[in-house]
Amino acid sequence: MKAMSFPSDIEIAQINEHDNMKNINEIANKIGLTPDDIEPYGHYKAKFSGRSITKSMEKDDGKLILVTSINPTPAGEGKSTVAIGLADSLQSIGKKTVLALREPSLGPVMGMKGGATGGGYAQVVPMEDINLHFTGDMHALTCAVNTLAALIDNHIHQGNQLNIDPRRIVWKRALDINDRALRNTVVGLGGPFNSMPREEHFEIIVASELMAVLCLAQDIDDLKERISSILIAYTFDKKPIFVRDLHVEGAITVLLKDALKPNLVQTLENTPAIIHGGPFANIAHGCNSILATKLAMKLGDYAVTEAGFGADLGGEKFMDIVAPRLSHAPNAIVIVATIRALKYNGGQALSDIQNEDLNALNLGFKNLKRHIHNMRYYHVPVVVAINKFATDTDNEIKLLTSLCDELGVDVQLAEIHHEGSKGGQALAKAVVKATEKESQYTRLYEDEETTEAKIATIASEVYGANNVEYSKKARNQLQTLKDNAWDDLPICIAKTQYSLSDDPKRLGSPKDFTLHVTDIVPKLGAGFVVVLTGNIMTMPGLPKKPAALNMDVDNEGTIGGLF
Amino acid sequence: MKAMSFPSDIEIAQINEHDNMKNINEIANKIGLTPDDIEPYGHYKAKFSGRSITKSMEKDDGKLILVTSINPTPAGEGKSTVAIGLADSLQSIGKKTVLALREPSLGPVMGMKGGATGGGYAQVVPMEDINLHFTGDMHALTCAVNTLAALIDNHIHQGNQLNIDPRRIVWKRALDINDRALRNTVVGLGGPFNSMPREEHFEIIVASELMAVLCLAQDIDDLKERISSILIAYTFDKKPIFVRDLHVEGAITVLLKDALKPNLVQTLENTPAIIHGGPFANIAHGCNSILATKLAMKLGDYAVTEAGFGADLGGEKFMDIVAPRLSHAPNAIVIVATIRALKYNGGQALSDIQNEDLNALNLGFKNLKRHIHNMRYYHVPVVVAINKFATDTDNEIKLLTSLCDELGVDVQLAEIHHEGSKGGQALAKAVVKATEKESQYTRLYEDEETTEAKIATIASEVYGANNVEYSKKARNQLQTLKDNAWDDLPICIAKTQYSLSDDPKRLGSPKDFTLHVTDIVPKLGAGFVVVLTGNIMTMPGLPKKPAALNMDVDNEGTIGGLF
Repeated sequence: MKAMSFPSDIEIAQINEHDNMKNINEIANKIGLTPDDIEPYGHYKAKFSGRSITKSMEKDDGKLILVTSINPTPAGEGKSTVAIGLADSLQSIGKKTVLALREPSLGPVMGMKGGATGGGYAQVVPMEDINLHFTGDMHALTCAVNTLAALIDNHIHQGNQLNIDPRRIVWKRALDINDRALRNTVVGLGGPFNSMPREEHFEIIVASELMAVLCLAQDIDDLKERISSILIAYTFDKKPIFVRDLHVEGAITVLLKDALKPNLVQTLENTPAIIHGGPFANIAHGCNSILATKLAMKLGDYAVTEAGFGADLGGEKFMDIVAPRLSHAPNAIVIVATIRALKYNGGQALSDIQNEDLNALNLGFKNLKRHIHNMRYYHVPVVVAINKFATDTDNEIKLLTSLCDELGVDVQLAEIHHEGSKGGQALAKAVVKATEKESQYTRLYEDEETTEAKIATIASEVYGANNVEYSKKARNQLQTLKDNAWDDLPICIAKTQYSLSDDPKRLGSPKDFTLHVTDIVPKLGAGFVVVLTGNIMTMPGLPKKPAALNMDVDNEGTIGGLF
Repeated sequence: MKAMSFPSDIEIAQINEHDNMKNINEIANKIGLTPDDIEPYGHYKAKFSGRSITKSMEKDDGKLILVTSINPTPAGEGKSTVAIGLADSLQSIGKKTVLALREPSLGPVMGMKGGATGGGYAQVVPMEDINLHFTGDMHALTCAVNTLAALIDNHIHQGNQLNIDPRRIVWKRALDINDRALRNTVVGLGGPFNSMPREEHFEIIVASELMAVLCLAQDIDDLKERISSILIAYTFDKKPIFVRDLHVEGAITVLLKDALKPNLVQTLENTPAIIHGGPFANIAHGCNSILATKLAMKLGDYAVTEAGFGADLGGEKFMDIVAPRLSHAPNAIVIVATIRALKYNGGQALSDIQNEDLNALNLGFKNLKRHIHNMRYYHVPVVVAINKFATDTDNEIKLLTSLCDELGVDVQLAEIHHEGSKGGQALAKAVVKATEKESQYTRLYEDEETTEAKIATIASEVYGANNVEYSKKARNQLQTLKDNAWDDLPICIAKTQYSLSDDPKRLGSPKDFTLHVTDIVPKLGAGFVVVLTGNIMTMPGLPKKPAALNMDVDNEGTIGGLF
């Protein structure tokens, strides 16, 4: 918890940006790149040039560290803050380190106060730019998603040679805005000069398959191939229609050729940070782009990356979807927890969370324990990082340490938020040690198993469910997957992030529950099958008092009220 | 007409970009700016920094040259090509010249083959970037427009304290996409958790008032003030609601703080070009931003800018809306015509246009004559530029020259498309001479006149109409303007670009016609009243074979099929 006198994130960031931020050419130089190897966006942001990406890929991989966490709670975990602070701490103990993170979506920035660029003395900068338009990747994606939608509707309007059923278009328009009014719409009204009336459901851009496609593509050719494979609709005869049937994969790839290049920025302590791509961790795989992580490994001796939400969602997907496509499994996994969040998991009320409660901590520890168990499944060394808050008591810290000791897992306190790198050096040293251990990456399932088998494995091994139930729609979709031979793809489960189960209210480590599969959606460009459980919203709304109400900018361009 | 062997625009651009394009720091240096005065976007594009904009505004103005044209025809005029070529030609005869142009909208690029960056040897580069995402201004605007719409719908959803009537929301969502399916939609469906159902009509971003606002703003404070004044809706009691009533002008300005900074690029001949803003010339005022034109005047001894569509639309609006806000009227006006287009105006069929037809030329000359007459109204020297095509015959050129001579207007042939600057030196010299003449800028009307009086003046003096008829809706809106004291604003007529009348089929210089006013829309942020005549489409559609079908990009990022 921040003390009253502790400065806000934007205050810390703006003071640093003024005093301490280095020209992006200097940051590039730290990782062996010349000014010609990057394409500057202002003086503090850059994209890697196509040539420098190709050149870097010839280097050997450094060590990869994956930062994940317990299930998120309103009490706060600070996973991004720990990931950023860990990279700074590794740098501060003399390790050549590069950070790879997701880029924030702008929609939520206008809604809830709080960005996605870390906090306190562990931030990536320039934080205002990164949280706003950054280098335009989200906007390029938005443009591409909606251009594809317009091309589909135009095809139908111009004679519908492909016989597309307007009721069976699966491609959705998207914006980088929290806009509940666009969840359910009817488009194409106004008579025969204005397209064909049909239902449309806008998503937030980070939920679009195209974001996942961008994040999994290895180069422009792979991007184009993935785009051409995207399932966009079915015909009146229920035959699948792909982007390639419209012959517009070239145009959509043209719109994304620059967005595919990872972005280089820096932390408050001038550690190079590659921030690129940001798919939702519930509906998609929830990690920054493959290219960003690869570059971080190629250009650093240590690459720190992060997976979205808890280890059950982002962590599992990193290990089962991303790692095989990286051709490099993590050399160590860091699971972030806070004592507050564990106590919340153990039943302590949020309003009491600043008070010592050893019983709640003991109960809530089960959530962390389950995630440790899950991550150990992959045979990669695990370290627990406790993101320390001022309200944590010595007794609580002692209890948590002994609970971790019982499991034989290394646990380290990190005081990164208030202290920066020097608060994370013990964690950094433990992580370095972990990466030096023997590891034998083992997947949870093989892609060739049946969809039901893969789902069953994740449900029981990761979530602890003892049963999986399919809706009628999901059963039909299982048949569609079989009929079309789309059965050999990895599984991307869309589930609430708040619980290991599909019920956001069941905290801790729930037992004896059923996972309810409501729908199954093949994402053939991304190359995975999304399995929906419970109600997953792909277009958020704004709150009663949106953060937008507090924002302002003066005539010199200085922003206030952003965070 | 391009000969078969003449290279395509993208071929010329790509060869030049490889061989001849200079680092943007060198272009900045030509106009006295250091690398710190600009914010690079890659190595060949930049934004002016806020500080360098402020600093530049202290300098004296150079001469301003406005390029406009006859009514556009399918035979082609090449106004942008002439504007770019004129700037190169001025530079080549030793004049320090800066070009100011609109930035292209991406939507049409996906539809019809052909960009908005000039043609042949008169282009601005890097042309692919400029025609695609450029520096993200259009995307920032799109984001801001739709964020504002989401905030309006959210206000209604969260209790509607302002009593906004969902049937009377005038703010429209927008995309930079040609998408007829979004012209008429219903949003907010799906029950009480998903906003209030209502009609929504998406526009293309360049038709949005926010684009006009950005282009007329003098600085961040003025931008914020204009945004706060935008009329977004009426209450159930028909009281107007403005952005300031929602308290989100700060947030929307935050989204546009970088988009407000003009962009610096170069021509094929390395003339500095400031490309910024691009409002539709029918629904809005159709010129690049005030800031771009001011910077061009401050940093060049000669500033060349362009107004959209013909002199009846963009030209008139430049003189009556933009010039007063620039505090600088043009020192010379160039009217671009082609012999082909004049013959088309005189009734020659497009399929015959390559054949000599002196009679059609003589008849069609009336269109040019009317525009010369109109522009002379403002008491600014006029030069006619004939953009020469290979099919123009000596007899045609001789006839056109003598017709211009009769009017006492200087006429010059420009062979800029095939020849570059050396094909435009005679024009450049004539223009320099014109700027040295006495000029006494006179406005067509005063803002304080009644709306009807201002409309009547434009209709009779510019279009040659002998009557103005108002629909019932337009009459009601006149009353609304009076009731709310919105009556003292300049007029922005939305009219077909193809005719001086409101009927696109009436070419040449129509007589004895009535102008039909269908609607009147106050744009209080932009600070003008839009008067709609005939059917004006604010969301274009894609053609049967969109240009997107031909686009591709290889693994090195080289684009093909763009133009």
